[in-house]
Amino acid sequence: MHKKWVSVFIPDSFLSETTDFKIKTSKIGVIGRALAVFNVNQVIVYKELSNNSDTVIERNRRDSDFMVEILDFMNTPQYLRKRAFPIKSELKHVGILPPLRTPHHPTEIAEVGDYRQGFTVKRTKKGTFVDIGMEDLAFCKEQLSVNKIFSFKVIKLAKEVIVTPDEPDDVYWGYKTLSTHKSLKNSLKLVNPDLVIETTRYADTINSIFNELESKIKATENIAILFGGPYSSLDENLESSHWDSVKVNIVPSQGTETVRTEEAVISTLAIFNILVNFD
Amino acid sequence: MHKKWVSVFIPDSFLSETTDFKIKTSKIGVIGRALAVFNVNQVIVYKELSNNSDTVIERNRRDSDFMVEILDFMNTPQYLRKRAFPIKSELKHVGILPPLRTPHHPTEIAEVGDYRQGFTVKRTKKGTFVDIGMEDLAFCKEQLSVNKIFSFKVIKLAKEVIVTPDEPDDVYWGYKTLSTHKSLKNSLKLVNPDLVIETTRYADTINSIFNELESKIKATENIAILFGGPYSSLDENLESSHWDSVKVNIVPSQGTETVRTEEAVISTLAIFNILVNFD
Repeated sequence: MHKKWVSVFIPDSFLSETTDFKIKTSKIGVIGRALAVFNVNQVIVYKELSNNSDTVIERNRRDSDFMVEILDFMNTPQYLRKRAFPIKSELKHVGILPPLRTPHHPTEIAEVGDYRQGFTVKRTKKGTFVDIGMEDLAFCKEQLSVNKIFSFKVIKLAKEVIVTPDEPDDVYWGYKTLSTHKSLKNSLKLVNPDLVIETTRYADTINSIFNELESKIKATENIAILFGGPYSSLDENLESSHWDSVKVNIVPSQGTETVRTEEAVISTLAIFNILVNFD
Repeated sequence: MHKKWVSVFIPDSFLSETTDFKIKTSKIGVIGRALAVFNVNQVIVYKELSNNSDTVIERNRRDSDFMVEILDFMNTPQYLRKRAFPIKSELKHVGILPPLRTPHHPTEIAEVGDYRQGFTVKRTKKGTFVDIGMEDLAFCKEQLSVNKIFSFKVIKLAKEVIVTPDEPDDVYWGYKTLSTHKSLKNSLKLVNPDLVIETTRYADTINSIFNELESKIKATENIAILFGGPYSSLDENLESSHWDSVKVNIVPSQGTETVRTEEAVISTLAIFNILVNFD
């Protein structure tokens, strides 16, 4: 696994082409899978600034929260979904979401030394009872906030299962999500990247700056990759003294008039996966 | 537009994870879009060889023809779809397919010198009447087979519109399709490529052979890119004296246990789009 921190920025207008929640759910599924396939650490849904009516702004706002909820659902191991996501109408179509099949969604029985995501069920003076998907709750000697998901390491497997908060650093452990309801620039400030990549067809082609990008990526730790929405390219001015910024057209000679956001996300991450993995 | 001839090979098991024709249609839509975004010239659906029961073989055979029909539908300009595709139950869900928005699906009124796809409606001794999406049929002085789609150039726009068979060579003009019902190797023989790219995670990473691939692609004209299905990697022996062959893992350090065929198709085409566009 590469050692960079990669964040992906998606506009809150991403779902605006359809009102069908089954289709919306399925489009989010494509993004969730792409994040996991390419080891993305974080996804941020930002507010697209344009001359939108109040109705559109409000709908995008709801879509933004919906996206993050579905992405969180996908990122949650199967065995914790019932606890973490009470039944509600927004989650009606989650059955069509493809599984991530990542290391943090294990299908085997836990052994000592394994890492597991767990849901904090109950706190006592001595510590916290945690659901890590075993028949009985595990116990953690630290007092943690309840009704939350944390990562744990299995320390002891006996009558009582003992776990401690911990996370592996050599395998992909899922993504974090954030719905900011802020402009792209203000959302970027929350992440504070070293390198900002703006994907747009109105830029130099990836071919013409391939080696330049490779060096820039090698020299940075925290990379933000930005995508526009179905009706507008990226057009905020994102210059800042806090980060280096590069605009790139990742589909030279595109055969179609437009590249859909989900197509751009997979294509761009496939290419950046090469760039972050060069020695 | 690049000057290579690129063919993509998809197994007939591509749709086998679902029996829902709406989902099948939507999965094919992803492939059709990817072909057009990345200027792919041809898509071939081959027969996956594995220890399948007769029932599975028969279902895959039907899925193979269904894929090609939907891909043909997507590739047909809107104005010819009613003529070219009589209503039938298999086409029930075509409403969810995303438009290609390619140059061969024009939205403007034809002018002299424009290229148009046309449907041959009626042949006489003097030539053929062709629907090119204008109010009246156009006339072509050649005698062509009827009920077929060909490409034409608009020669004269007067009371009568005159067209002649022709195709532009400087813009992407859609893809051809073929459902072979043959093994991958026998399907490859129909295309006879110079260079065969097998995508599989059990191969050298794209990073380790990037420059080698770039040179090989530069030296060839006819490239075949092969994908496996949801339940099996590529495992036929495809060595041949007729073509050079390279195996490559296009997703180094994948975060998920598997990469879905449609994810692999977009990712691979995004990367090969760079490789074919290097000077």
